[in-house]
Amino acid sequence: MTPMLTPLDRSQLRAAGVTEPWSYGIADMVRFYELDALNHVNNVAYLRWFETVRVRYMIDYGVSDFSHGADTPQLVVRAATAEYLKPMFQNERYVVTARTAQMRSASFTMEYAVFAGDLRATGTAVVVMMTPDGGAKMPLPQQVRDTFVRRDHARQIT
Amino acid sequence: MTPMLTPLDRSQLRAAGVTEPWSYGIADMVRFYELDALNHVNNVAYLRWFETVRVRYMIDYGVSDFSHGADTPQLVVRAATAEYLKPMFQNERYVVTARTAQMRSASFTMEYAVFAGDLRATGTAVVVMMTPDGGAKMPLPQQVRDTFVRRDHARQIT
Amino acid sequence: MTPMLTPLDRSQLRAAGVTEPWSYGIADMVRFYELDALNHVNNVAYLRWFETVRVRYMIDYGVSDFSHGADTPQLVVRAATAEYLKPMFQNERYVVTARTAQMRSASFTMEYAVFAGDLRATGTAVVVMMTPDGGAKMPLPQQVRDTFVRRDHARQIT
Amino acid sequence: MTPMLTPLDRSQLRAAGVTEPWSYGIADMVRFYELDALNHVNNVAYLRWFETVRVRYMIDYGVSDFSHGADTPQLVVRAATAEYLKPMFQNERYVVTARTAQMRSASFTMEYAVFAGDLRATGTAVVVMMTPDGGAKMPLPQQVRDTFVRRDHARQIT
Repeated sequence: MTPMLTPLDRSQLRAAGVTEPWSYGIADMVRFYELDALNHVNNVAYLRWFETVRVRYMIDYGVSDFSHGADTPQLVVRAATAEYLKPMFQNERYVVTARTAQMRSASFTMEYAVFAGDLRATGTAVVVMMTPDGGAKMPLPQQVRDTFVRRDHARQIT
Repeated sequence: MTPMLTPLDRSQLRAAGVTEPWSYGIADMVRFYELDALNHVNNVAYLRWFETVRVRYMIDYGVSDFSHGADTPQLVVRAATAEYLKPMFQNERYVVTARTAQMRSASFTMEYAVFAGDLRATGTAVVVMMTPDGGAKMPLPQQVRDTFVRRDHARQIT
Repeated sequence: MTPMLTPLDRSQLRAAGVTEPWSYGIADMVRFYELDALNHVNNVAYLRWFETVRVRYMIDYGVSDFSHGADTPQLVVRAATAEYLKPMFQNERYVVTARTAQMRSASFTMEYAVFAGDLRATGTAVVVMMTPDGGAKMPLPQQVRDTFVRRDHARQIT
Repeated sequence: MTPMLTPLDRSQLRAAGVTEPWSYGIADMVRFYELDALNHVNNVAYLRWFETVRVRYMIDYGVSDFSHGADTPQLVVRAATAEYLKPMFQNERYVVTARTAQMRSASFTMEYAVFAGDLRATGTAVVVMMTPDGGAKMPLPQQVRDTFVRRDHARQIT
């Protein structure tokens, strides 16, 4: 079966026109329900794409398995931004990328981008790690920090 | 780049556990935004999948290119149904299939199914072909009829 | 504050042009995100409206409080249908109605309609009541049956 | 019929706990489809609320009637942000507010907020005015500027 939402490796990303510093991304295609009455992709749909790649990234980077189990830290989006550079249309194929740029004690800032040949949109999200019951902030485990540094060259912000 | 929403051929469908009479389908994967508060795929999301495969099918079968151009017939959904057989969950891979089962003078009935190993859901839609300005029903072109018969064994209903 | 999604009583429904047998409905208004590239309300959006009125109905009729608590039966949609009679557009005000037409031992069939001056769409859903853990079907409590009969004239199907 | 999405006047806003500088807002209620698998309002849903109040605001302030007509300037969102302060849950009633804070020659920056008793979220959007064919930026008409200043105390940014 055709692999879907499978993370692309660095060489696949470069072949798709995705430049440095991106090393994690998934390919997808514009769907009819993402268009609005102006017949282009609605600006909110990009936030959905950022969410889709974020969830996948969290699993692949070992941050959370989204099992909602008693040992699973909760990840809460505290802030989000998006910049729209060029419109997108029905059936366009694109790659949406994700990386962690900065870490603080219990939160981290992710960056996103959408490429379809050229760069179409960028975004950010501030994600806070909470205890499994959601009651308090939780320091990022060292293993997660190491992964963010190794794979994304994330910087520690004091 | 990884092919996305690419129609699967008959042998790929069979390899994915999709049985007769299906000969058209696309592979996809459950996304976080398709879950609801019960933590399974919301029943409305399946209708989105049927829409996604329907739009793709219309293009591939030469029924409409969705260009909204002056020569493009409009396709209007007049009725829709869905039956939910088993729940679906985050990250599940599935194939959603489509075929035209029946044709009338200016409309046709499509059938859909969702397979993820086994059958999870089925659906139907009655689609009416309208003139490009949307003002009147339009008979199905003979070429479209022939394609529905040849590829889907669609039956003519008088 | 302006009451929102507040159920309309029978006289308010009649004033809004909603005919018999409807006695439960909520008023709302088409939003931009419910339009698709054809600039009318997408056919899937109506299913969202049916869901919104259904959730509210379940609470008001005492069927479920959607608390996901250990004593709360789960309500699962087993089938859904919609018929589209006339298109709807940005900013149109409408009333979406709900009633239970038929009851079986552990399930019931609801009907829905959308009125905006005249009738725009209808729908149905088959809802199955499950035990709180979702493991088995659960007979409809007598109190729920009585409410369906008293308020909606629901018929028992053997 | 119950007024829906009707803009609240200043005294209604104050009665709903909406503080200065907000003078435009609409009341609404959390719907089931806005919840995600964590059982609270998904962070993307707030962007939908900002869109809904923005479209209504544009019509009421005389910026655009969204008719897509040959004389109607196009409004394009160039950037969007959201900050999430407290979670929101099923059936919560809220007011989402909008104002224009800054104007440039062919664009303006809007601010949004969500109140449900207390402040739950804030957001911004940079909106660019384009010619009806979407081909070029278009200076904000003087009448629009005057309205932004008079109603929202918008500041001109050179």
